[in-house]
Amino acid sequence: MSTKAALPKRSEHYSEWYNDLVKRADLAENSAVRGCMVIKPYGYSIWEKMQRALDDMFKATGHTNAYFPLFVPKSFLEKEEGHAEGFAKECAVVTHYRLKANPDKKGALMADPESRLEEELIVRPTSEAVIWNTYKNWIQSYRDLPLLINQWANVVRWEMRTRLFLRTTEFLWQEGHTAHASADEAVKETEQMLDVYAEFAEKFMAVPVFKGVKTANERFAGAEETYCIEAMMQDGKALQAGTSHFLGQNFAKAFDVQFSNKENKLEHVWGTSWGVSTRLMGALIMAHSDDNGLIVPPKLAPIQVVIVPIYKSEEQLAAISAKVDEIRTSLISRGISVKFDTRDGMTPGFKFADWELRGVPVRLALGERDLQNGTIEVSRRDKERGEEGAKTVANIEGLADTVQNLLEEIQQNMYNKALAFRTANTRNVDSYDEFKAIMARGEGAVSGFVLAHWDGTGETEQKIKEETKATIRCIPLNAPEEDGVCIYSGKPSKRRVLFAVAY
Amino acid sequence: MSTKAALPKRSEHYSEWYNDLVKRADLAENSAVRGCMVIKPYGYSIWEKMQRALDDMFKATGHTNAYFPLFVPKSFLEKEEGHAEGFAKECAVVTHYRLKANPDKKGALMADPESRLEEELIVRPTSEAVIWNTYKNWIQSYRDLPLLINQWANVVRWEMRTRLFLRTTEFLWQEGHTAHASADEAVKETEQMLDVYAEFAEKFMAVPVFKGVKTANERFAGAEETYCIEAMMQDGKALQAGTSHFLGQNFAKAFDVQFSNKENKLEHVWGTSWGVSTRLMGALIMAHSDDNGLIVPPKLAPIQVVIVPIYKSEEQLAAISAKVDEIRTSLISRGISVKFDTRDGMTPGFKFADWELRGVPVRLALGERDLQNGTIEVSRRDKERGEEGAKTVANIEGLADTVQNLLEEIQQNMYNKALAFRTANTRNVDSYDEFKAIMARGEGAVSGFVLAHWDGTGETEQKIKEETKATIRCIPLNAPEEDGVCIYSGKPSKRRVLFAVAY
Repeated sequence: MSTKAALPKRSEHYSEWYNDLVKRADLAENSAVRGCMVIKPYGYSIWEKMQRALDDMFKATGHTNAYFPLFVPKSFLEKEEGHAEGFAKECAVVTHYRLKANPDKKGALMADPESRLEEELIVRPTSEAVIWNTYKNWIQSYRDLPLLINQWANVVRWEMRTRLFLRTTEFLWQEGHTAHASADEAVKETEQMLDVYAEFAEKFMAVPVFKGVKTANERFAGAEETYCIEAMMQDGKALQAGTSHFLGQNFAKAFDVQFSNKENKLEHVWGTSWGVSTRLMGALIMAHSDDNGLIVPPKLAPIQVVIVPIYKSEEQLAAISAKVDEIRTSLISRGISVKFDTRDGMTPGFKFADWELRGVPVRLALGERDLQNGTIEVSRRDKERGEEGAKTVANIEGLADTVQNLLEEIQQNMYNKALAFRTANTRNVDSYDEFKAIMARGEGAVSGFVLAHWDGTGETEQKIKEETKATIRCIPLNAPEEDGVCIYSGKPSKRRVLFAVAY
Repeated sequence: MSTKAALPKRSEHYSEWYNDLVKRADLAENSAVRGCMVIKPYGYSIWEKMQRALDDMFKATGHTNAYFPLFVPKSFLEKEEGHAEGFAKECAVVTHYRLKANPDKKGALMADPESRLEEELIVRPTSEAVIWNTYKNWIQSYRDLPLLINQWANVVRWEMRTRLFLRTTEFLWQEGHTAHASADEAVKETEQMLDVYAEFAEKFMAVPVFKGVKTANERFAGAEETYCIEAMMQDGKALQAGTSHFLGQNFAKAFDVQFSNKENKLEHVWGTSWGVSTRLMGALIMAHSDDNGLIVPPKLAPIQVVIVPIYKSEEQLAAISAKVDEIRTSLISRGISVKFDTRDGMTPGFKFADWELRGVPVRLALGERDLQNGTIEVSRRDKERGEEGAKTVANIEGLADTVQNLLEEIQQNMYNKALAFRTANTRNVDSYDEFKAIMARGEGAVSGFVLAHWDGTGETEQKIKEETKATIRCIPLNAPEEDGVCIYSGKPSKRRVLFAVAY
């Protein structure tokens, strides 16, 4: 077993660092199918933790899961004009339903020309069309509302430039689709789910987020209003981590979904949709990890504690193992997940580096002398090697308490660090020259977030994007009213909006 | 709210009864996309219970989840000859990656001819090809083995005749794919997963199953041996509820997956795959339910206990609700899921019928007089209306114990009933005339399972199928050796095999 080369340094090659880390920490890899990824077992186990936590939150807010078809008939996509415009472009089109032996090439297969579909099927890029076509039959009366449904599914968007987790042709996500009797109720739902996403990002992922609404240019195709959460990555770029859309009556009108209200009059239903995807894995990695590898917050860590034995003989290992059994039992009884790394033929140093790469929050190392002293070495992954408190010695007696408290402390510390970084790199800017200078910072320096005045027009937004690559990530919710002038046009503005270069 | 018409009777129209029940109990419905179903929230919540139980069992046997791409390049399907033969036929073929506005028809979309793929992509009908192509890079040495991976996913097989849950174009399933250093270990894995499926069927679904191996004709395309579990439905037909395949080195050879063994020599890897699908929902329904609707075993019931208040005034409802709050708390504290049905404008009788239709195992009804007496009406769904013990009166004091015991009793009773039915309808048959007479029974009578001698040839198997529609479901594991003669050819046979007409 050879020791592995170090990762590229974040300060020098951020995107290579990311790509290497994703592969080397066994999170995901590119597949033989262009733009589609394989989510490897370790990466998938983190995604499963995310799913479980989100699913619990969806259910606690009254939603249930269901499943709708993978395929969308082409004609469905034509129904909601804005939606078709935004989504119909880059997608996988199924045109045939059978393969047959290729008569011109032995052993080869070909699409059977006789199996051509009358109407092409699109692999869902999102499911509004299929779901609203179904809701038509489920909703007749106000008594059938609200309808609060979520789906965990795969979707396909034919991306030209892909990156593991961040932008892939196929990805996994959840998509909530709700139907309501009033605009007011639908807006409340949209906002509630945004809050759920923000809470998940902050409490589980340890990633602080800005909540806001998108400008008209950046709105979801078919929505009246798109709410989003925006997170800052370590390179200062923004990552949109979740969106929640108020659909108005657009899909209800496109698919003719009406209900009779309490006055027995027909009205179109009001809708929302909201989703987060495996992109969150990218956010998690880029918000926290370091040059030694991944750092996973304890609440999402598939393995929270790893125990590495330090031994020179089989007898020593046996004595250590007996003590480790006790430790494991006491940790597991508190719901802490533990791995005892007994792999043979690897040095403790190799194992330490391996678990660092995978971001396990707490590492315990136990050797012969520790056994005699009743102590154990405790390392926390959220601190840098050599940083004060990164490595301590604890008593084995009471260790479960020590570890439980430490896991909570790590979770909180990771959030605090990410928040401090974001705060340090979020600037109020009042001149376009300063804005351009900040956005022009190269790799190694951080542009971060800029709060600036904007005149509210799409033209200005577009010009700034062309000139600086920065986009308006959102108009923050609850941004204080403040008289100012647009940094670009000098026209009056009532509040600052959030700019950044984004993933 | 109108009362609903009764379901068709099982004894008269079994398949209409099934179709109606699936729709009326809100389990699933046909979608606008040919052969694809919508799994409705209530149906999906049962599937989620199945998933959770199976997933726990997979993890307890050392497997982890991962995710592989939806698309299989056409050339991958060509690699394993038998596999291509068996699977390449009926599947969804993606040929283009973009839609564009149709210049000849305003508002319409068309596949952009310029986006034609160089190589067609097949929507996975199963993932052996994609996964073994990936394993090639994951496996170098015996130290990388075994590789024990499962995937929860959707798959597509273009079925001509579809039925909700039983046979749909798209369905949900799990597929395990493991790689091993020896044939022996791979066979043990194949058998272990068959045991997991059998245990799940019997302990959770309350459905007894025969374990066995398929004949060569019925083997999975690309497998050396296919193990299966076969369940008897109430109409006497067999339903294959799960399969576990020993793949030999077929996929390893097709995708060139080799490992260096302990002697440092290269060998091809040994493989298995195993899966169960949303088809299990069909098995669950057809093994247990009755003319009043679904019957769900307590271990898979999303709602285990429903409480219906019987009241004439708001004051009565308030008093009942206060008591129900206590009852719910005590049930929930034992992990029992409870629904209090306070829907307005429906009679208790309507509610009773509604929950019967949905198969909730235990119904509690609480009225004014019960409150005074400290009693409550307890109905169990596994018994027929009017059957002894179907409805009893219990003391509210100690009710949690009563209900917990009752749920366990219902789980066991459902299994016992299904087993008794199967035993009564499984016959040893020694003449082909008798065999034909049994298989010729029309709707209303039950052909059931027949254990008979067979000469081991595909020709005989095929003839019997053509003449009677019965197929060999499996060669049961641990079938006693017994000298006999084939019912069809009269040639010698060493053991009986299991025949039935199958779904």
